[in-house]
Amino acid sequence: MDKFTDLEKILNVKFKKKSLLKQALTHRSYLNENPDFSLGHNERLEFLGDAVLEIIVTEHLFDNFPDTPEGELTNWRASLVNSKMLYKVAREIKIEDLMLLSKGESKDRKSKARQYILANAVEAIIGAIYLDQGIKVASQFVQNFIISNLKEILDKKLYLDSKSKFQERAQEKVGITPRYRVLSESGPDHEKSFEIGAFLGEEMVSTGKGLSKQEAETEAARIALQKKGWDK
Amino acid sequence: MDKFTDLEKILNVKFKKKSLLKQALTHRSYLNENPDFSLGHNERLEFLGDAVLEIIVTEHLFDNFPDTPEGELTNWRASLVNSKMLYKVAREIKIEDLMLLSKGESKDRKSKARQYILANAVEAIIGAIYLDQGIKVASQFVQNFIISNLKEILDKKLYLDSKSKFQERAQEKVGITPRYRVLSESGPDHEKSFEIGAFLGEEMVSTGKGLSKQEAETEAARIALQKKGWDK
Repeated sequence: MDKFTDLEKILNVKFKKKSLLKQALTHRSYLNENPDFSLGHNERLEFLGDAVLEIIVTEHLFDNFPDTPEGELTNWRASLVNSKMLYKVAREIKIEDLMLLSKGESKDRKSKARQYILANAVEAIIGAIYLDQGIKVASQFVQNFIISNLKEILDKKLYLDSKSKFQERAQEKVGITPRYRVLSESGPDHEKSFEIGAFLGEEMVSTGKGLSKQEAETEAARIALQKKGWDK
Repeated sequence: MDKFTDLEKILNVKFKKKSLLKQALTHRSYLNENPDFSLGHNERLEFLGDAVLEIIVTEHLFDNFPDTPEGELTNWRASLVNSKMLYKVAREIKIEDLMLLSKGESKDRKSKARQYILANAVEAIIGAIYLDQGIKVASQFVQNFIISNLKEILDKKLYLDSKSKFQERAQEKVGITPRYRVLSESGPDHEKSFEIGAFLGEEMVSTGKGLSKQEAETEAARIALQKKGWDK
């Protein structure tokens, strides 16, 4: 039993063409160091898998929420197919140690770049399942590992960005609309950094830093939600 | 024979549920003026149709171009599913006079807003065909009206933005990489406008204006392609 067989068990998919699964786990950096490797890297499978994931999630939302407007469905879908969710799936299906990466990339654990590599590999796996097994098996996988998170996303309103969520909660809990004020700016023009406070009335609940006002405000809102215990 | 029957003939689809086709042609503005209208507007169908179109085009490209890298396939796909292409389809299938719009919107022909409304309606029609007839009939429609444009897009390299295309042609024809120089900036900070020249060596081939440097450069490149006769 090799490590790919273990992965097939986790995925609950028995591949006819095992090489597709291996290719889905092959990052482009690996081919640079191993030009004779017989399979390609996973980017074409990712291109396919991205569209497969999108139609499966879209159809699920369309069918199960007949009275929900398109704008909300779009937000819900975004929170199901974003790279954060795909990275979460990557950890659940334990692919990090199976990835074929260059030696340089192999060392770079925990980085943002690594998270994207793993998220993209999950899309490639969805593409590989679709190619090898068809839409039903692909749907089952997406249902088990991705759509299964929808209830929590809706319950906790995780589809709202932090600023929207902080505003909604603040109005609901204390009847106040949050305001943001720039506390300081620093750095030269082309790489300014902002520190911004999130206020409820006169109370400064939190501060956030970022390379744009939007980024700093979002960070401040995220921390404010935590401080108030409104992030549950 | 009503006008929707004529449309079915053009689409080559006989709907089981005729109301789906009517809904696909219903803009949200119509419901504001006709609150008792029994069908909803077309935005949910558009949400579905967008994803259906994406998977059909993606799978076609993936299957038919086994050696093409993902980056190129992504560019080709973008030129097949963008609103310009969808608007072209809208004119071909002659839906403009069938649209259910508010009186205000009805007058507003030829505007950019109208083009988006029609492009979105084409996505909604794809969603309606998929719901009513399944993926095979939807694929046939997408094949006939959208993928049928692929040969021309590839032959004329329409998938390249003007700057990429001007660069490619300039290198090919005269062995020079184009350069861009800002000729003038005007207007206040929040609505600056730029005039930029596109150069081959010392020759200024064209100028372009825009609200960002990128926009002005793209415009300059587009005009340069025309002036040189490289846009064929």
